[in-house]
Amino acid sequence: MNRQQLIEQIYTKRSYLCVGLDTDITKIPKHLLDTEDPMFAFNKAIIDATKDLCVSYKINTAFYEAIGLKGWQALEKTVRYIGDKHFTIADAKRGDIGNTSSQYAKAFFETLPFDSVTVAPYMGEDSVKPFLTYKDKWAIVLGLTSNAGAADFELKRVVTQQEELEDEVHYIKKQTKFLYEEVLQTVSQWGSQDNLMFVIGATQAEQFVNIRQITPYHFYLVPGVGAQGGSLKDISEKALIQGECGLLINASRSIIYASGKEDFADAARKAAKELQEEMSGYLK
Amino acid sequence: MNRQQLIEQIYTKRSYLCVGLDTDITKIPKHLLDTEDPMFAFNKAIIDATKDLCVSYKINTAFYEAIGLKGWQALEKTVRYIGDKHFTIADAKRGDIGNTSSQYAKAFFETLPFDSVTVAPYMGEDSVKPFLTYKDKWAIVLGLTSNAGAADFELKRVVTQQEELEDEVHYIKKQTKFLYEEVLQTVSQWGSQDNLMFVIGATQAEQFVNIRQITPYHFYLVPGVGAQGGSLKDISEKALIQGECGLLINASRSIIYASGKEDFADAARKAAKELQEEMSGYLK
Repeated sequence: MNRQQLIEQIYTKRSYLCVGLDTDITKIPKHLLDTEDPMFAFNKAIIDATKDLCVSYKINTAFYEAIGLKGWQALEKTVRYIGDKHFTIADAKRGDIGNTSSQYAKAFFETLPFDSVTVAPYMGEDSVKPFLTYKDKWAIVLGLTSNAGAADFELKRVVTQQEELEDEVHYIKKQTKFLYEEVLQTVSQWGSQDNLMFVIGATQAEQFVNIRQITPYHFYLVPGVGAQGGSLKDISEKALIQGECGLLINASRSIIYASGKEDFADAARKAAKELQEEMSGYLK
Repeated sequence: MNRQQLIEQIYTKRSYLCVGLDTDITKIPKHLLDTEDPMFAFNKAIIDATKDLCVSYKINTAFYEAIGLKGWQALEKTVRYIGDKHFTIADAKRGDIGNTSSQYAKAFFETLPFDSVTVAPYMGEDSVKPFLTYKDKWAIVLGLTSNAGAADFELKRVVTQQEELEDEVHYIKKQTKFLYEEVLQTVSQWGSQDNLMFVIGATQAEQFVNIRQITPYHFYLVPGVGAQGGSLKDISEKALIQGECGLLINASRSIIYASGKEDFADAARKAAKELQEEMSGYLK
């Protein structure tokens, strides 16, 4: 799915909601455990109940890998069931040296039909670039994440130096910035707003104005609304681009586990509808 | 496998070789493609030919995920075939918020019987800690990697400040260090030399003395010898701890693709034996 198609979906549905399928076999309603593939049965019901309210589904690969082969099977069935009308995200946080990242890109973009993969930036350019070589596919690179651990490295200050020319004299200008800012600035040069997005946690609201200045046109995948405490209103006011949106707000647990009983799909729809209706108000 | 058992294996076999099973379905000898599970058939032959010469096998998950379900199946069969006499590494570069990292830890330590997983540090403490809660299991955290992209962020300088007390006056002392140094120092406080290792690329030889000073007792997983050009001699001289070793040197392509023909297992043994014999000389 390309940028224009994604934006069209958003304004047609009046929603920039991404439903996170963090499907935990130990948390899904008990009556599903008798089905042949409980994780897929759960996902199918959630997708059927929410597909007109969201533009994207994010599959958190960890929860599928946790149960081994059967999980990988449920993951594959789920992404194929979603189809091509929604923007699909493999939330896999991959990233390795070039020849290995190429294999991850193949896994999610060729063997599986995902539109995008989340990518960790630590190993630098050759670890990210292989995800940017596919038409209408996206790398969603970690910028500033929603968890407490973001303070450990992402919010450390790094020294950057810049050569400046003034009155025919070259100066070396040293300054410091947050590591995540350096990541946004550097990584955004490796691709474009048509194949790169960034993960920005909803709990980092005080940084959103600054982040939008550094990367004015990029889409952000924003987890952390709901269970983690981030505010949809706050983020939308600070980072939504009128006419282009530029946001995919993810909610996982607050939607898929809205009820732990047989009415889980109805409850998920209700939770998704509340978010969609609020979003509709922010899309002028 | 715990630290003592690993060290015993190293001194018994006189080897600190890790064979990297970066098994690419498009590169394995053609005659194997007719077998039911070509990737496993290839791995089994490589393991049989090298198991007395190495102490560890590293499975690069990307190459298995690249072919989907069948790959995940080959990965599972391979790690079970290796058994518990070798230190097994899931080279998966995982890392996510706490509740998700816990699922990755479950995937590799409970559902699969790996001894260790490689972990990306960008997201901080809660993304690493879930891998440190299992007895005799290890997180191998990225420190300074072997690829060109290491220069993009790992070798950026970060500002750190330290409070110091001198003559009853508190001073704030600011200094800069490489991001990877900050990662080594910070992460090493989250675990111990009994459950934490670091990935240090063999191509970063000029940093090895410094790295050994920061983390004097930790094991390093060192990729980049062979195809990527790192020197076994150089690294061993700079970072080997006499009596404890503290190194696992990985070679992947130079061993497993030593020959692309029917004699691939014999050629792999020959390449592994050369490295093992050289290592034997460095283990006083």
